[in-house]
Amino acid sequence: MKKTLIIGASGQIGKMTTKQLLADGKTVIALVRDKSKLADISCDKLHIVEGDLENDFSQAFADCDQVIFSAGSGGKTGDDKTMLIDLWAACKAVDYAKLANVSHFVMVSSIGADDPSQGTEIMKPYMVAKHMADEHLIGSGLNYTIFRPGLLTDNNATGKVKTIRPSNKEDMTINREDVASVLTYTVGKSELGGKIFELFNGEKTLADILN
Amino acid sequence: MKKTLIIGASGQIGKMTTKQLLADGKTVIALVRDKSKLADISCDKLHIVEGDLENDFSQAFADCDQVIFSAGSGGKTGDDKTMLIDLWAACKAVDYAKLANVSHFVMVSSIGADDPSQGTEIMKPYMVAKHMADEHLIGSGLNYTIFRPGLLTDNNATGKVKTIRPSNKEDMTINREDVASVLTYTVGKSELGGKIFELFNGEKTLADILN
Repeated sequence: MKKTLIIGASGQIGKMTTKQLLADGKTVIALVRDKSKLADISCDKLHIVEGDLENDFSQAFADCDQVIFSAGSGGKTGDDKTMLIDLWAACKAVDYAKLANVSHFVMVSSIGADDPSQGTEIMKPYMVAKHMADEHLIGSGLNYTIFRPGLLTDNNATGKVKTIRPSNKEDMTINREDVASVLTYTVGKSELGGKIFELFNGEKTLADILN
Repeated sequence: MKKTLIIGASGQIGKMTTKQLLADGKTVIALVRDKSKLADISCDKLHIVEGDLENDFSQAFADCDQVIFSAGSGGKTGDDKTMLIDLWAACKAVDYAKLANVSHFVMVSSIGADDPSQGTEIMKPYMVAKHMADEHLIGSGLNYTIFRPGLLTDNNATGKVKTIRPSNKEDMTINREDVASVLTYTVGKSELGGKIFELFNGEKTLADILN
């Protein structure tokens, strides 16, 4: 039985993805710092592993076949955490995944990570972190898929996305739940490897876009 | 005539290296944010280029054969500058050097950059930045030499170094001027490419160690 490790499973997108995968009958290994954050999910296919992304969390990789990295330091922390979580923990996850021979590593990156120099003063350190983490994954030899969502919103999911960047900045948004649906859809599809997609709300189904 | 670009030429090590290279009769392109910082050096082989490491500084690479990256955000700035200078400016320098087909890129890294996870809480973000910059250089295809000095001191130069890490932490020091001498010695020696050296005060001459 293939198992998916979700790193950052108590984050907003991570938790939505966990619930969606379990609803699909998939087995999830959820890496969280504090398991009480998932206390509202009851499912025998959910295996919670406690770990700290700022230390060694390789124990979470013992029995997984694919990995989704959806952890983030969050907007309220300083740039030290951006360096330690968004960049360094992501690189460590890639290295652990490589040692564990996982078949597919799915990274939740960010729009703008392709070209941090274009970022605003406030966002640039975060974009550098995401860019370098993506670069480390691409160079790792792992079978990878990188998603770079636009500005995240809490609107209801539409189930429709696009991967072509809109011309208006205001249209560069996507619902968190639609990002989670994309991640869920990607599980088991290692043929999506070697690809980088930007993600925005759109008009097409996931099957249309990701096949 | 071969020219050496020094990035961070108004920093302590960068300025010492600039002076040493000029004293050796070498031509130096000195990249600085503010040229008045080099007003005390008068030499027709010194070409000052003003540029900002947080923006595009590719103009400094137009006419150089080798590059020394000795810039640093300094200890007094926040981790946003660690990300933007120690990591991102270093990566941009590597990319510009690649486009300019330089024969040798010499990076001033830091002890601890090999394994940031072992760093102290305070130093870890800096170690991650240096590690990832080194990784970007190594993966670039450029002919590189990376130096990782121990704790920098302002003692007088000894002209003697070692590259084997001392067993006592208190001995893991090196004079800034000795680091500058190592950089100066390295110029024109592209056969030192593909190597990473830690640097400490020691008992051997540069010629003993680096040949």
